[in-house]
Amino acid sequence: MPALDIASALKRALALATEAIGLTDPNPRVGCVLLAADGRELGAGHTQPAGQSHAEVMALRDASARGHDVRGAIAVVTLEPCSHHGRTPPCCDALIAAGITRVVVAVQDPNPQVAGQGIARLRAAGVAVELADAATADAARELNIGFFSRMQRGRPFVRLKSAVSLDGRTALPDGRSQWITGEAARADGHAWRRRAGAVLTGIGTVLADDPRLDVRLVPTARQPLRLVLDPQRRLPPGARILQPPGEARVIGPGRADLPALLAELGREGINELHVEAGPTLSGAFLDAGLVDELLVYQAPMLIGEGRPLAALQTLGGLDQARRWRLVEALPVGADLRLRLRPT
Amino acid sequence: MPALDIASALKRALALATEAIGLTDPNPRVGCVLLAADGRELGAGHTQPAGQSHAEVMALRDASARGHDVRGAIAVVTLEPCSHHGRTPPCCDALIAAGITRVVVAVQDPNPQVAGQGIARLRAAGVAVELADAATADAARELNIGFFSRMQRGRPFVRLKSAVSLDGRTALPDGRSQWITGEAARADGHAWRRRAGAVLTGIGTVLADDPRLDVRLVPTARQPLRLVLDPQRRLPPGARILQPPGEARVIGPGRADLPALLAELGREGINELHVEAGPTLSGAFLDAGLVDELLVYQAPMLIGEGRPLAALQTLGGLDQARRWRLVEALPVGADLRLRLRPT
Repeated sequence: MPALDIASALKRALALATEAIGLTDPNPRVGCVLLAADGRELGAGHTQPAGQSHAEVMALRDASARGHDVRGAIAVVTLEPCSHHGRTPPCCDALIAAGITRVVVAVQDPNPQVAGQGIARLRAAGVAVELADAATADAARELNIGFFSRMQRGRPFVRLKSAVSLDGRTALPDGRSQWITGEAARADGHAWRRRAGAVLTGIGTVLADDPRLDVRLVPTARQPLRLVLDPQRRLPPGARILQPPGEARVIGPGRADLPALLAELGREGINELHVEAGPTLSGAFLDAGLVDELLVYQAPMLIGEGRPLAALQTLGGLDQARRWRLVEALPVGADLRLRLRPT
Repeated sequence: MPALDIASALKRALALATEAIGLTDPNPRVGCVLLAADGRELGAGHTQPAGQSHAEVMALRDASARGHDVRGAIAVVTLEPCSHHGRTPPCCDALIAAGITRVVVAVQDPNPQVAGQGIARLRAAGVAVELADAATADAARELNIGFFSRMQRGRPFVRLKSAVSLDGRTALPDGRSQWITGEAARADGHAWRRRAGAVLTGIGTVLADDPRLDVRLVPTARQPLRLVLDPQRRLPPGARILQPPGEARVIGPGRADLPALLAELGREGINELHVEAGPTLSGAFLDAGLVDELLVYQAPMLIGEGRPLAALQTLGGLDQARRWRLVEALPVGADLRLRLRPT
């Protein structure tokens, strides 16, 4: 008989939540595992597409399908169960009604409509609730970093993606960039696109490269919204970015106010915004301090003269350069994936 | 009583050899451990400065000082024992005379004067000789990569060091570069300088930055030779690079022929050449295909307009770019140390 192992159940719940990436937006990715007091798994599940069932209900349904009685069971869940009526009834009520007596929560819900009320509601019903350790809470927050950003700052988490040579070039002087990074890095880039509610680029990139900016190299249940900033309405109607699958939207005429645009995308439910643009738009995001994560694929080559990652305002001194914190350096094929966040 | 553990003894011998970095040039760094048949360590040592004792003799002397009888013992050594009379008598003879009956060698000596003859000489005297596994052989070769280069190619192993921003800049447009990388990266850079027989730069860097290019931030027993390429003899007599500690040499007048210079440095016994130069000289080494390792400290910042890592010949297409293989990506302080070798 297995021993009760909450840490492993939290890992499994996080893995289930990870499977919900690309499925649940604008809702968070949540995983839930139901355990008997002796540690046996009774049921498990993750959030479904928006408007459908949350993780807790999926896990309860799974337990029922497997013929298990969940009265007196433990629910291990990666995000605080919801307490409000949205498009689905509150998960707290479902857990209470099912007779769950103990709930382990990886991290509190940042949604002001939940924010501790789920935990309070469970406790009021006599359910024992405990929070996971800090490392698990961090992992749970990372998984929904865009949802947290939208709930807490009213705007998406902005990830700026670039593929550069070791000397920081994204293309030859004439714009040719196929291919600096390898196939594995390109597929990995699509996996990050899939996480995003929207992918944003500028008209310069569309006119130069005519990219699709959809998710093709990894399987996905949905396509992120594609956005093109086009101040002078130069987008050709035949541009590939406008073609299915998925939807595209042109922003213009007129120069976009980036903070206002982010606020608008937040209101629309975009959790993660994936920016994949040329030096001008990348520079505008960076100079405005609006980038929450740099995702850089660095190819092991030197190009010499070429296009820069971003056209930045000239620095008066090195002490004026914004400092980043390297959070990851991971080989992907022959390339190196770097992720950095502002210090 | 400890069991006989050859793998651990090889690791210990490699660690001893590592302690000889910055001590033995132009000789290789070698470590030796003497083990009794039951696994007890009887003696250990590493190569001393050129003209002094080799690792095997140091280990025999250590065993003797510890009062151990080494007859019937095992010698574990990171490089094939020498068989020729150089400035010291052959180590093979010392091992045979001491009554060593088994020798484990991490890697064969690339020196044409040794090249298997050490092993043959030991075997002819009835000593059992075996070679270590491939991973240990690689580690032993890496430790003396410059010595192997000089013996096999007649020229030093060329390591080109640079400190760059994430967008590949080494300085602001006006040349200011203090400091892109942090203190830990600078000290680490000095540790790589210490490995080198010589540090090479160009007159442009000397006139712009007046660097010392000596080893200060890590302890060292000796200073590498400092070389300045100065085609028009513009070096000011008061330049810091000319000042003690250590020696400096000016190469000029006239444009240096880089392959000829490397051959000359090889003849002089330079195993590793550490190039720390501006974009012009770095570009010349790179365009000529003379760089064996790129050592790049990448700072987590974006600079925008600035000086490039290297002024390279313009590429006709991305397929013409030389490809490198990333052999290491290691955080050093807030920076990332990258090492790359030609594919």
